[in-house]
Amino acid sequence: MVERDTSFTQEELAYLAGQPLGRIATAQPNGTLQVSPVGFRHNTATGTIDITGYRMAQSRKYRNVADNGRVAFVVDDLASVRPWRPRCVEIRGRAEAVVDPRLGPIIRIHPERIISFGLDEPDTDAHSLTINARDVHQPRHGAERI
Amino acid sequence: MVERDTSFTQEELAYLAGQPLGRIATAQPNGTLQVSPVGFRHNTATGTIDITGYRMAQSRKYRNVADNGRVAFVVDDLASVRPWRPRCVEIRGRAEAVVDPRLGPIIRIHPERIISFGLDEPDTDAHSLTINARDVHQPRHGAERI
Repeated sequence: MVERDTSFTQEELAYLAGQPLGRIATAQPNGTLQVSPVGFRHNTATGTIDITGYRMAQSRKYRNVADNGRVAFVVDDLASVRPWRPRCVEIRGRAEAVVDPRLGPIIRIHPERIISFGLDEPDTDAHSLTINARDVHQPRHGAERI
Repeated sequence: MVERDTSFTQEELAYLAGQPLGRIATAQPNGTLQVSPVGFRHNTATGTIDITGYRMAQSRKYRNVADNGRVAFVVDDLASVRPWRPRCVEIRGRAEAVVDPRLGPIIRIHPERIISFGLDEPDTDAHSLTINARDVHQPRHGAERI
């Protein structure tokens, strides 16, 4: 049985499913930061965000993750410009550079903290949006092997 | 006389001027990365990217920059989905948390490396785009004080 990932709210999962790109931040071995647009999907079985990309295994971000596992990832857009209606899901956590049997080389993000806003308050002024920020717990290692 | 900033190409400046949001990555004192959407503008006088935001001085990213000055910043979008036409300007560099006399608290990014693609090749397959990546040099300290 595949356990349901309860780290994300239903609103967050619906929003993530509808967005084509996110932006991933990683750190080079010397500490220099980088950030770039990437394709992604929420992996229900592992409770992770899986990052795909052209020539992923050769990319600097893949090597950065293999080096230190540090990562932050954000998906956001503007539901409208007038009025200003930002929507956002930010994920901080640890990542692995792995080769998925089906997807090939991917960056697999294990969320440790999730911060979202603007997903279910379409009529709220941008400066009054509720920030949903919380630490999340990963299933134990065994449970990830489903 | 205000010197012209030659770090960016004309295509990059035109693209940046037309995009409402970028995403900034910073590092907390303990090394945890974060990334979030922000408003920005290219500052011709200083040759910097100036990041603005609601309650900037209270934000974690502002404090992160004050702590260690590490930053990466990306502006990207999809010119079209079918065919897949990504456009992107990524900037790596050092940043300051400063109070601008006119804008208030801002994060000021001094570009050290610029990576862009997709800005002037509207008919090129996404996997064949030219990556324009180069180190850039900041004007000396005195020149920034114009």
